[in-house]
Amino acid sequence: MGHSDRLLMGPGPGNPYPEVLEAFGRPVLGHLDPEFIELLDETNERLRAVYRTENALTFPVSATGSAGMEATLCNVVAPGDVVVIGVNGVFGERMCDVVDRLGAEVVRVEEEWGRAIDPQRMLDAHPSPKVIATVHAETSTGVRNDIAEIGAAKGDALLLVDCVTSLGGIPLEVDAWGIDLAYSGTQKCLGVPPGLSPVTVSDRAIERFVERSQSWYLDMAMIANYVTGGGARAYHHTAPISMIYGLHAGLGVILEEGLANTQARHQECGDMLHEGLQKMGLELFAEEGHRLPEVTSVHIPLDRLPRDQDEADVRRYLLGRYGIEIGGGLGPVAGKVWRIGCMGHTARPRNVTLLLAALAEILD
Amino acid sequence: MGHSDRLLMGPGPGNPYPEVLEAFGRPVLGHLDPEFIELLDETNERLRAVYRTENALTFPVSATGSAGMEATLCNVVAPGDVVVIGVNGVFGERMCDVVDRLGAEVVRVEEEWGRAIDPQRMLDAHPSPKVIATVHAETSTGVRNDIAEIGAAKGDALLLVDCVTSLGGIPLEVDAWGIDLAYSGTQKCLGVPPGLSPVTVSDRAIERFVERSQSWYLDMAMIANYVTGGGARAYHHTAPISMIYGLHAGLGVILEEGLANTQARHQECGDMLHEGLQKMGLELFAEEGHRLPEVTSVHIPLDRLPRDQDEADVRRYLLGRYGIEIGGGLGPVAGKVWRIGCMGHTARPRNVTLLLAALAEILD
Repeated sequence: MGHSDRLLMGPGPGNPYPEVLEAFGRPVLGHLDPEFIELLDETNERLRAVYRTENALTFPVSATGSAGMEATLCNVVAPGDVVVIGVNGVFGERMCDVVDRLGAEVVRVEEEWGRAIDPQRMLDAHPSPKVIATVHAETSTGVRNDIAEIGAAKGDALLLVDCVTSLGGIPLEVDAWGIDLAYSGTQKCLGVPPGLSPVTVSDRAIERFVERSQSWYLDMAMIANYVTGGGARAYHHTAPISMIYGLHAGLGVILEEGLANTQARHQECGDMLHEGLQKMGLELFAEEGHRLPEVTSVHIPLDRLPRDQDEADVRRYLLGRYGIEIGGGLGPVAGKVWRIGCMGHTARPRNVTLLLAALAEILD
Repeated sequence: MGHSDRLLMGPGPGNPYPEVLEAFGRPVLGHLDPEFIELLDETNERLRAVYRTENALTFPVSATGSAGMEATLCNVVAPGDVVVIGVNGVFGERMCDVVDRLGAEVVRVEEEWGRAIDPQRMLDAHPSPKVIATVHAETSTGVRNDIAEIGAAKGDALLLVDCVTSLGGIPLEVDAWGIDLAYSGTQKCLGVPPGLSPVTVSDRAIERFVERSQSWYLDMAMIANYVTGGGARAYHHTAPISMIYGLHAGLGVILEEGLANTQARHQECGDMLHEGLQKMGLELFAEEGHRLPEVTSVHIPLDRLPRDQDEADVRRYLLGRYGIEIGGGLGPVAGKVWRIGCMGHTARPRNVTLLLAALAEILD
């Protein structure tokens, strides 16, 4: 069964670095093999470098990004705890769902989709929350929420941040910004296919772990005995070996390029795309000053679509003629915005230029 | 960073089929790409073939085998429910832990490690359990528990079975045996690296799903809208694309060989290994009549180890000199048994012959 070679310019996955797919082909080691433990340790060291943290508990959760959300939340949130959550898109909303299932009290800080959340509102929402949780890069809207201001004044609360679409793509300083728990995904700016959720957890957060997490699979107190166990690693579950090879390789590409250079490449592509779309007369959805370079949301020019075609037809045409995937909108902006990603290996000027030319061909 | 090419004869992972590693290298598709949906549908169809079921809800959970355990349990077990669990090894014990976290009542049916559980004891343990749960192939002991007798007389209960180490390796009949929920792992007899947990769920079980599962990530009512959504697939989480390519390819190898032939190959290797070990004077740990061919547990001949060496030294020697991994014991049998796997691509007579010769060289 053959399939096509896509240019992935949706909200994720992006195209993986070639080095990552090469790594997938390497012979499989056992999860307790000393050579694998060494590779896992090195992967976690690389994660610390991109997360900009010294946190000992930094590792890839053996599941996709949303499992990282659940893993970070379920290890610190107990029934009855108060959790302040910023909601200006799908992923803030998802956090509320997860926290509600944990039996905790959700305090929502809502903002209009497309706009960033004022950090002061997060701080003022409750006098003594256990956790303040927010999304750094909202994949559903292309908006960046500010984090550092919350961390600086968080007080007793733990600061938990969704970095799925920010890690590797835009500046992120876990330690300097006072982030206690962060999670990400491999398929965005890390240039690795989906399958793992890199997380990092401060010692301060570990001290406030719940007695026993609701989830066995995501119980970080148990997982820590494997991922940070020193000489003796206690088996918890079988690590996803090949995916970790891929993550190790993707992080290697980034660190060889230099994290700042990788981020600059994402920024350059984002700037090109934003300018190009606006030059074509299109209107960006995310508010100025908080636009992500790696995921761009743009109002669909409904009056400029080809005759008798809707926006999904345009996306199908891009896919069929050019093998280019771009994303539609989710929830309230479905049918109203497109989401265009430039992440990981996809974040190259040539891809932006191609997409702009292809759109120019299609639109009236 | 180079690493070694191992012969994986531990309790899992086994060596993957070459076709699987080839599939990992294929270009990544988006999780909503029509070509990916087609591949996912075909993967699920192949899973139905190896699970021997018509269950519509059959798909790979986006995490490793233990997440399949949690996923199947958390969608049918609510606080206060009674769950009968067979415990004769690590994985039955793990089920108790998961069910306890769900706030349900665990009724344990214990058996000595190395012995199979009498199905009648499972049926007699409680007059009206919501779920009867047991492990088909106990990876920690090499024992096969009988399933069909439970399914035939389960009454109102749902029958939930851990098939992590049985699927693809020994006969398993989900529909004919009356299994309502089953989960497995990719890294055992399916010949795919670890990373996914194929599950299958009967319509009868779906009708008895809890209102909302404790876990968002493993909420099968939501996931079903993506994996069995027909034309319109609702995004839940980003599917682990490359791992699913690998599973698709591994299942393809099995179905091309013929499921019965794959099982016969596992049986032949297990028989060779059991006979060979006994000929060398070693004693098998699992009771006769319930020995798994794919995972063999054997008493470590402590009086025949090389002078001044312990059992871990022997395993290190096998790894260093031959690149062969075998497994130690878990829990109460640590230091007392070795576990030797012949699973997936590893299940070849040449590997068994090599291992027996290597052991003969080492032991007194």
